[in-house]
Amino acid sequence: MKHFQAFQFYRVLLFFAALILAAQARAEADSLPSWNEGPAKQSIIDFVKATTTQGSPQFVPEAERIATFDQDGTLWVSHPIYSQVMYCLDRVPRVVKEKPKLAKVEPFKTVMSGNREKIAKLSMDDLLKIVATTLTGMSVEEFQAEVKAWLSKARDPRWKRLYTELTYQPMQEVLKYLRDSGYKTYIVTGGGQDFVRVYSEATYGIPPEQVVGSALATKYEYDKSGKPFLIKEPKLLLNDNNAGKPEGIHLMIGRKPHAAFGNSTGDRQMLEYTKAGDGARLSMLVLHDDAKREYAYGPAQGLPATKVGTFTQELYDEAKKQGWTVISMKNDWKQIFAFESK
Amino acid sequence: MKHFQAFQFYRVLLFFAALILAAQARAEADSLPSWNEGPAKQSIIDFVKATTTQGSPQFVPEAERIATFDQDGTLWVSHPIYSQVMYCLDRVPRVVKEKPKLAKVEPFKTVMSGNREKIAKLSMDDLLKIVATTLTGMSVEEFQAEVKAWLSKARDPRWKRLYTELTYQPMQEVLKYLRDSGYKTYIVTGGGQDFVRVYSEATYGIPPEQVVGSALATKYEYDKSGKPFLIKEPKLLLNDNNAGKPEGIHLMIGRKPHAAFGNSTGDRQMLEYTKAGDGARLSMLVLHDDAKREYAYGPAQGLPATKVGTFTQELYDEAKKQGWTVISMKNDWKQIFAFESK
Repeated sequence: MKHFQAFQFYRVLLFFAALILAAQARAEADSLPSWNEGPAKQSIIDFVKATTTQGSPQFVPEAERIATFDQDGTLWVSHPIYSQVMYCLDRVPRVVKEKPKLAKVEPFKTVMSGNREKIAKLSMDDLLKIVATTLTGMSVEEFQAEVKAWLSKARDPRWKRLYTELTYQPMQEVLKYLRDSGYKTYIVTGGGQDFVRVYSEATYGIPPEQVVGSALATKYEYDKSGKPFLIKEPKLLLNDNNAGKPEGIHLMIGRKPHAAFGNSTGDRQMLEYTKAGDGARLSMLVLHDDAKREYAYGPAQGLPATKVGTFTQELYDEAKKQGWTVISMKNDWKQIFAFESK
Repeated sequence: MKHFQAFQFYRVLLFFAALILAAQARAEADSLPSWNEGPAKQSIIDFVKATTTQGSPQFVPEAERIATFDQDGTLWVSHPIYSQVMYCLDRVPRVVKEKPKLAKVEPFKTVMSGNREKIAKLSMDDLLKIVATTLTGMSVEEFQAEVKAWLSKARDPRWKRLYTELTYQPMQEVLKYLRDSGYKTYIVTGGGQDFVRVYSEATYGIPPEQVVGSALATKYEYDKSGKPFLIKEPKLLLNDNNAGKPEGIHLMIGRKPHAAFGNSTGDRQMLEYTKAGDGARLSMLVLHDDAKREYAYGPAQGLPATKVGTFTQELYDEAKKQGWTVISMKNDWKQIFAFESK
């Protein structure tokens, strides 16, 4: 009878142990519910386990846990055109009202014509002129207020939703999963640092001081009452694309990331730099191969070529060779947006 | 009897309430034990209470609590010469060994002569040449290793102590008090960002990503094996002095500080910028008026003039006019260094 009791006791113990293990497994799996089971999801879980489990040979102290995320095409939709460019185009009429002479000068004349076909054909130089004119000559506070007002009403033409609603749910889960695991998450964007900082906290849970991006210089001035302010200048200080990404990471963070996420050739150096570190490092690329639920573009893997968020076959081959993980939006993501019905 | 019991009960209650209040007051006072009682210490305590007490009209949400500290002369000794300049001078023989031609060229010839009088007279241009030559042409990791090795053995000539021991105990207490009150503490230094980041965490409890400073550009390159690295370039990207301080704060943090600490004219704009914000803002200046325990220099208040850490009378007058607090090292600090016997 005593043996029987002990046997019963161990059975109960085993039962509870099994319950606990199952709950643990569920909790882990539940960190990434919008991801289909597969190598992409698994690589994230394996990386977090390797770097955050005490005693793991690849354990990383919490202070050193840095993860960097490109934004356009990695955290939110960037097609057919970057949201910040939409902002700049939307702002042209107001700038022209302030400086009427611009109405007769290209590229402002084309933007004011409203001819979408012509606007879509503007060169990179034209766009840079528009960017420089629409983003500068005001205080940083004025700029922040303008962007905030625009974001509260401007809508993406396809989904008819606010731009900040067009973030990828699976990547939001990765951001949270990494933060819950002691990682400090940073945005490292080719887009404007000041622009992204306006909404990064509310949209991604990333505070402004953890946004690294392309940056125009500011200049310290005094207003008529003697109060100092910073004015945005038409001078590019940091170009946070390509090699500018690891350079910007060193300047702004000073530590090599342990994980980095991108989606285009502009992220290549950031992923190389991350992967070149010791221990477990995670470099991931989002491949936009889902024309139905979002967009499909490459030209890697025979996808249509694009000027916005180019993902070349060369980049794809480097990813495979270097042990980066390519995320197939179509196959790896169960759900793309939070607003989708599940 | 009942009344007597009630009376006794309230007496006991009052006694415990008094005990709790006294303990609270002690706990607060204990955050800054190296400070003498006076307006400087009180202004710090008042600021922290105003911005961190729920319901206070000047309450600041924790995410927005940013405090910025100049380093040289504010957090550690910078006289008679900046520690980083000592590092550069110490490194000259090694650079000359690598590039022997430099031995015949000024200012390297003077440095190699060992003539202290002549070295002390080198111009700012000469020093910049030395800085550019000794801090560049190596990877960021090589640079970090060099600085770490130097800091582990180089000693200040007056105190015969490691430079990292020459931090001001009262300011270490302010750093900790602010962090314990939910503030994120940043160093905003005119010195080299990469240099300070090597020891900021161990010395001040400030992680590298919270160090803003003057910065040379880096360049992304590949070694022979194809491994990427960042090399330090002789190109000044950020000059974090004067107006460069608020500009650097905007670039690197993106929020206006609620508290800022400096000691020289190079900090003026940072303190103005901080004080120009809404609500409670704290701008403080350390005045080196203690020739016995540390150094005395100004030329404010009739103190001897200096080229290192100049504190002009104009700055002193602005501080008084704008409601900044001037800290008298002599009168406000009970103890200056942690190694002093108490």
